[in-house]
Amino acid sequence: MQSSYDVVVIGGGIIGSAIAYYLAKDQVEVAVLEESRIGLKATSAAAGMLGAHSEYEGDGKDFFTFARYSQALYSKIQDELYGLSGIDIGCKKGGILKLAFSERDKKELGTILALPTVTWLEANEVKNLEPDVSPHIIGAAYIEEDTSVLPYRVCQAFFKGAQVYGASIFEHTKVLKIQKQQDTFQIDTTLGMIKAKRVVIATGAWSNPFFQQLGIEQQITPVKGECIAVEGRSTLLKHTIFHDKYYIVPRNNGELVIGATMKGNDWSEHVSLDGMETLIQKAKELFPAVGQMKINAAWSGLRPQTFDQKPFIGFHPHDDAILFATGHYRNGILLAPATGEMIASFILKKAVKKEWVEAFQMNRPNRR
Amino acid sequence: MQSSYDVVVIGGGIIGSAIAYYLAKDQVEVAVLEESRIGLKATSAAAGMLGAHSEYEGDGKDFFTFARYSQALYSKIQDELYGLSGIDIGCKKGGILKLAFSERDKKELGTILALPTVTWLEANEVKNLEPDVSPHIIGAAYIEEDTSVLPYRVCQAFFKGAQVYGASIFEHTKVLKIQKQQDTFQIDTTLGMIKAKRVVIATGAWSNPFFQQLGIEQQITPVKGECIAVEGRSTLLKHTIFHDKYYIVPRNNGELVIGATMKGNDWSEHVSLDGMETLIQKAKELFPAVGQMKINAAWSGLRPQTFDQKPFIGFHPHDDAILFATGHYRNGILLAPATGEMIASFILKKAVKKEWVEAFQMNRPNRR
Amino acid sequence: MQSSYDVVVIGGGIIGSAIAYYLAKDQVEVAVLEESRIGLKATSAAAGMLGAHSEYEGDGKDFFTFARYSQALYSKIQDELYGLSGIDIGCKKGGILKLAFSERDKKELGTILALPTVTWLEANEVKNLEPDVSPHIIGAAYIEEDTSVLPYRVCQAFFKGAQVYGASIFEHTKVLKIQKQQDTFQIDTTLGMIKAKRVVIATGAWSNPFFQQLGIEQQITPVKGECIAVEGRSTLLKHTIFHDKYYIVPRNNGELVIGATMKGNDWSEHVSLDGMETLIQKAKELFPAVGQMKINAAWSGLRPQTFDQKPFIGFHPHDDAILFATGHYRNGILLAPATGEMIASFILKKAVKKEWVEAFQMNRPNRR
Amino acid sequence: MQSSYDVVVIGGGIIGSAIAYYLAKDQVEVAVLEESRIGLKATSAAAGMLGAHSEYEGDGKDFFTFARYSQALYSKIQDELYGLSGIDIGCKKGGILKLAFSERDKKELGTILALPTVTWLEANEVKNLEPDVSPHIIGAAYIEEDTSVLPYRVCQAFFKGAQVYGASIFEHTKVLKIQKQQDTFQIDTTLGMIKAKRVVIATGAWSNPFFQQLGIEQQITPVKGECIAVEGRSTLLKHTIFHDKYYIVPRNNGELVIGATMKGNDWSEHVSLDGMETLIQKAKELFPAVGQMKINAAWSGLRPQTFDQKPFIGFHPHDDAILFATGHYRNGILLAPATGEMIASFILKKAVKKEWVEAFQMNRPNRR
Repeated sequence: MQSSYDVVVIGGGIIGSAIAYYLAKDQVEVAVLEESRIGLKATSAAAGMLGAHSEYEGDGKDFFTFARYSQALYSKIQDELYGLSGIDIGCKKGGILKLAFSERDKKELGTILALPTVTWLEANEVKNLEPDVSPHIIGAAYIEEDTSVLPYRVCQAFFKGAQVYGASIFEHTKVLKIQKQQDTFQIDTTLGMIKAKRVVIATGAWSNPFFQQLGIEQQITPVKGECIAVEGRSTLLKHTIFHDKYYIVPRNNGELVIGATMKGNDWSEHVSLDGMETLIQKAKELFPAVGQMKINAAWSGLRPQTFDQKPFIGFHPHDDAILFATGHYRNGILLAPATGEMIASFILKKAVKKEWVEAFQMNRPNRR
Repeated sequence: MQSSYDVVVIGGGIIGSAIAYYLAKDQVEVAVLEESRIGLKATSAAAGMLGAHSEYEGDGKDFFTFARYSQALYSKIQDELYGLSGIDIGCKKGGILKLAFSERDKKELGTILALPTVTWLEANEVKNLEPDVSPHIIGAAYIEEDTSVLPYRVCQAFFKGAQVYGASIFEHTKVLKIQKQQDTFQIDTTLGMIKAKRVVIATGAWSNPFFQQLGIEQQITPVKGECIAVEGRSTLLKHTIFHDKYYIVPRNNGELVIGATMKGNDWSEHVSLDGMETLIQKAKELFPAVGQMKINAAWSGLRPQTFDQKPFIGFHPHDDAILFATGHYRNGILLAPATGEMIASFILKKAVKKEWVEAFQMNRPNRR
Repeated sequence: MQSSYDVVVIGGGIIGSAIAYYLAKDQVEVAVLEESRIGLKATSAAAGMLGAHSEYEGDGKDFFTFARYSQALYSKIQDELYGLSGIDIGCKKGGILKLAFSERDKKELGTILALPTVTWLEANEVKNLEPDVSPHIIGAAYIEEDTSVLPYRVCQAFFKGAQVYGASIFEHTKVLKIQKQQDTFQIDTTLGMIKAKRVVIATGAWSNPFFQQLGIEQQITPVKGECIAVEGRSTLLKHTIFHDKYYIVPRNNGELVIGATMKGNDWSEHVSLDGMETLIQKAKELFPAVGQMKINAAWSGLRPQTFDQKPFIGFHPHDDAILFATGHYRNGILLAPATGEMIASFILKKAVKKEWVEAFQMNRPNRR
Repeated sequence: MQSSYDVVVIGGGIIGSAIAYYLAKDQVEVAVLEESRIGLKATSAAAGMLGAHSEYEGDGKDFFTFARYSQALYSKIQDELYGLSGIDIGCKKGGILKLAFSERDKKELGTILALPTVTWLEANEVKNLEPDVSPHIIGAAYIEEDTSVLPYRVCQAFFKGAQVYGASIFEHTKVLKIQKQQDTFQIDTTLGMIKAKRVVIATGAWSNPFFQQLGIEQQITPVKGECIAVEGRSTLLKHTIFHDKYYIVPRNNGELVIGATMKGNDWSEHVSLDGMETLIQKAKELFPAVGQMKINAAWSGLRPQTFDQKPFIGFHPHDDAILFATGHYRNGILLAPATGEMIASFILKKAVKKEWVEAFQMNRPNRR
């Protein structure tokens, strides 16, 4: 094990993978330290919707432009990553239908319907697209440009790509302590001491110990989400359907992923019967045919939530050699490419949009 | 492969295993032909309750005495099988509580409460035994002598025991045709031709093709059942609890098995979302704490149902060299030892209780 | 369940799926009867190489042209199937390297090296492409046009596409007997009686009972194959590497599939320790870095082998209303599209290349 | 969550479970903090041999008496734990055969053959007990009293039992920092702050960060071990067979567990192809019939190794309120009951054998 790097990224999820990729591509000597295996936690648990519009709640133009920018990056890197790694990140077209079951639902869709890329479809138009959707809808907001990817594949592909460009990935490597001596970080790990000029914290729901150690007062709280995957024969679902934070995403392997529950401050990582019951009931409401389908898998993950549900992407308030890229909440997959590129730009002293810097810096004001 | 046996048993589930065991133990040269792997279907899917009382519906004294006899055989063979095979069949004491949520429920328990081995417990007595049971019960019928076993283990142990006594087990062996020439059956299989003096059909839900081929007009219909297994930490369940055909069985590995749905004439072998929803709702009704528990597994199986829900155990009406042991419906695990012993007795011309012969013979009258 | 169809296809593997697709696309009313679940057996077990060249042994020009034609069909249907079904069949470019470890190996590659689309690469050229390949090779035949697909996905996509065009798929439906009355087949199944004007047998390794019943004297023998899938971090394999019937196929999910053993006349469907040992040793010979990789899965399947290792695709010798499409041995995935199209052409009385008709008809001469 | 306990045990493996049990049974208010789920790591990975003799290498009489004592405790607690928890810990009789393939092997068995409870068996005597053992053995040391248990079950049963006696178990609870203020420990965790009068470190291979934090200079190094489980039909193995650190343990569910590789200083937790190859080759050497068996599972775990391969059980050298119970290397399952009882005795100020105190205290001399 080489003992010294320009940048050490702590955390081998999709955020860490994107950072490693953009840094390595620009010839930065980077190592990633991952406690267990890459992409094992929130990354693998995510359904993979790139819902720049569908997750938009009108609460921040900068967040939306950042999300759209990241969504666009996916189109760009898809072939690039396949060429480097042989891994297909599974971009799936089709778009998202945010269903409305009532006038009230429709009204709540107002914010996203105001966006130029979102269209209102009447019930019969929705049924033309998706004949087996609930008969009780009154229409849907159709967001053609919101697509999906396979999150674990993205993470793998970023890391393989990063390795081709020279990055080092250390799995099963736990960070015990980070100390700074002059301009060098001494990172004490289960594999021994590693030195770095800069450190990036990309540890999602497990960030608090690092915050504490590095003198940050912010907190990340976990919001547990559970998903199930099912497989049927007789029906076809081509678009993601979405209602009230729940969704059914058709995967390009023929499975449907049903997600996701929201349990604040629950660190447990198992799927509970209560969680399954909620998902089944909600899925049947949206798409009754799922009731007959075969359950293939169930899993859960912990979304890292910040005070305003927006990520921390930027420098330590008092030390420019420490960067954070964590707290992506429900949007880690969507925002990974733009986050990776942004962190690389900070390190390489490239320009970053001022609005984005301010929107995601750690000591932004609490407007809530 | 030896080409000739005294008895060929078709079907490697728990019924076939018990027959093979009792025959081999009595020095009969027996072979078992199993299409896939032993114990893979209804056997593995069963929860393993030995509910001689709890499944009793007052509809046949002979059925009840046979069930009690079989239950008693389990105590006898447990050590015998362990000694021969090293396999522990997992007999679990504790008894069964049939819950009553209403006076009507209590009334329906009348039939079994009339049995000398069954006691009525008031709600507070039940809660002494099981503090986390539903607060809405008014009491329960307590059946101390109904226990449970691990069905796949029983099947394995019977087969290992049978092998020690000289039986041959052929897995992955499909029967293509059965023909009789003089006094010998020629059984055409994917492994080649096998001869036998006697044939026993123990093929559960898949018996109809054999009935058809052998000139039997009876039909077996499948009744699909789905189960889930869960694991929790904070609560303890020591007794099986049972209500309205649903149950929660504590396994001796710390898991709870929740079962079972009933879907007539459904040949599909997957667990559906509808099935899971039903089980979760029912389980929460009986034992609210399961809602928080971790789901470990889900599976399903096909119960073989006859016209009167009682098994066929006996001779072919026109050919004493053909025997049947199938159609055990919800009671295959419970009745396996007595069925195996009874078939062996028929073949070895030992005495069998006349009432049992009549109750289970194929051309018994339809009293329904 | 509708009781009457133009064509009933027995067998829901990849061959049956392709037949259903091409028939349904041409407005033929078709039903598929599958004993368990679609694509569960040999289809799922296959690694998915489209080795038109790499499996070529110089023994039949017609087989080769048919294989190349089928390979080309895959490029054509990939988008068509995605559009209909939303399922990505996972076409993976990269090509195949048939490694030579000795002059003798190189000599044996002569037959395929004679093909215009195959190039000889010296050891250093191979290492440029694949730096981690065994250092002991002397070179490799490089077949750029041999690619791979995900077999279960192909089967699913064909069936979903067929359903969109009106086909019916019945899983968990066992055929008990086929009888012909005048011009109609009466197919007795576990779901009841189904009628058909034509019957297609696409039952792979499980074809003998149908041959027997329909008066065909041919035999299919199973050749069991075992595979394992592994995942590593530090190395990259972009091309399939192949030596002596063994191969390592990089999947587009980052896994490597190592296959496959060859065990004649073994009906068992489990992976044995002997099989695993062989695969591990062989894989380390080809690509030493696999030794450190993580094992993800292991499985096996039964290849259906005919007397000359070429499939039966064509009419029953004495009844044009019965067709066969079985016995595809190591080439079921590769040949599925062309087989489906050919059977559809027979039924729709379209032209089929005379050489192919003769090469695959059931009563072709035994030239071995 | 209650915020204050008499004793907090860090680590929810089998060692932590035994400590919690013996403390709770004696009315001590105890809480266990487990980072993920109980018994998930080395505990679940262990084969469960209680090899007091078979692991004896003549290097310490005190270790042997302690091991024998712990083995005896298992017989005592088996029914006690079943009664409290309903969990059967799977004690399996049968004994262990340490095989000798050569005179040299036999000579190496001298140490254990000198023990009064160990007998030498000639090859033919071994074959009487185990007909399918390798034909190349010259004999075996037979240790009737070395048995096996199911490790995860033991851990579950200890914890359920502890809960019945009032202990609290917190899973998914990571310890961030331990600080002492006057006589109270303030343990900062992901669930919040917990106070304790005493702290016990039972964290196996993951103990170094705690050692570091608490001023201990010792180190634990991981020694990775891989295992596989197989299932066969035609043969029977009733005794554990053992040779050269490898073993085949028959489980009471009919499986054979083959273990275990030894890889020093490897933190990875996956099963590698190299590991599987080693296990398969070794198992075939001991018991050739395994080659045909079906592989059911593969897993790995990290043994915690100390400088002299003996555990640390005792007080912190400078603070009697901190205790350690870690570093059990290959013997965690065997030594769990005695370790739990010993820690409880320390805390409750009961007598502990002086030799054992000295043998396992942290600052014992390094005699190696």
